[in-house]
Amino acid sequence: MSDDTPLRGPAIRGIPEGDNRERMICADCGYILYDNPKIVVGSVARWGERILLCRRSIEPRHGFWTLPAGYLELNESASAGAEREAWEEAHARIEIEGLLAIYDIPRISQVQLIYRARLLDERVAAGPESLEVRLFDWHEIPWADLAFPSNRWALQHDREAQASRDFTARINPPGF
Amino acid sequence: MSDDTPLRGPAIRGIPEGDNRERMICADCGYILYDNPKIVVGSVARWGERILLCRRSIEPRHGFWTLPAGYLELNESASAGAEREAWEEAHARIEIEGLLAIYDIPRISQVQLIYRARLLDERVAAGPESLEVRLFDWHEIPWADLAFPSNRWALQHDREAQASRDFTARINPPGF
Repeated sequence: MSDDTPLRGPAIRGIPEGDNRERMICADCGYILYDNPKIVVGSVARWGERILLCRRSIEPRHGFWTLPAGYLELNESASAGAEREAWEEAHARIEIEGLLAIYDIPRISQVQLIYRARLLDERVAAGPESLEVRLFDWHEIPWADLAFPSNRWALQHDREAQASRDFTARINPPGF
Repeated sequence: MSDDTPLRGPAIRGIPEGDNRERMICADCGYILYDNPKIVVGSVARWGERILLCRRSIEPRHGFWTLPAGYLELNESASAGAEREAWEEAHARIEIEGLLAIYDIPRISQVQLIYRARLLDERVAAGPESLEVRLFDWHEIPWADLAFPSNRWALQHDREAQASRDFTARINPPGF
């Protein structure tokens, strides 16, 4: 970074008084950013045997297929967030059945809460963050073109939960 | 707030370009705070039939009993965070068995992930945020002196999960 590039906002590392971890602090005003991991909420939404996927119109992973999911907002319950994301990305009305899985991605400080859900209406349509949306039979799922490893985990965990009727919340596969 | 009180850090409300929600913005430098709900991680940790509780030495709810729990930190997995909190608050070594419950507290933008766990060692001792720590038999639990409603939910959900061997992740009781 060159000398004439200003550091905007909390850009200096330091341990605040009474704390035991480094936080980001603003050099201009002393504001301390207590940053914490972010929560992603999403769903495996089924219409009969078919599953809703969205092809991303945004980075990262533009053009790849994903489950409808996104950041939980302030003052929003996690299941309401998963319903909102299905609506925003696929104009899909869904009903949450229960928690399918919790995936930890500590490398990027993300906790994903993925719900089992059913579509209340077969009609879906791409929202602004999707190029297209579609219901896939299991044998049609574009495994090689999924956006994120956790998409694959969730699809397989949902399949397994539906077959076994064991709805214990799943976690990351071993080694991930 | 009087005119000579400076607004430090992101203190002005506004909708950034390309966004659709109000965020807090710093008047000094334009920094935009994308604030999101925080994740609390904790555990119901058992030694045989007895359950670990900690009496809080900090506000809120100073002097009341709670399960060991606290904010998940950056680059930490949720289960590792629950283990760390048990250690920090009660010098308790625990082994996570699985996710007991996910409680949404949207009013305060909090998602709580509470794990089933067992103590690896009966010896526990108060950490800096606890006045005392203790293992309670079920009939000894100080229900009237629990710090938070979700403490009660988690204790009852764990009891019920142990009895039924149904480990489906629990959620907030109806109406909460």
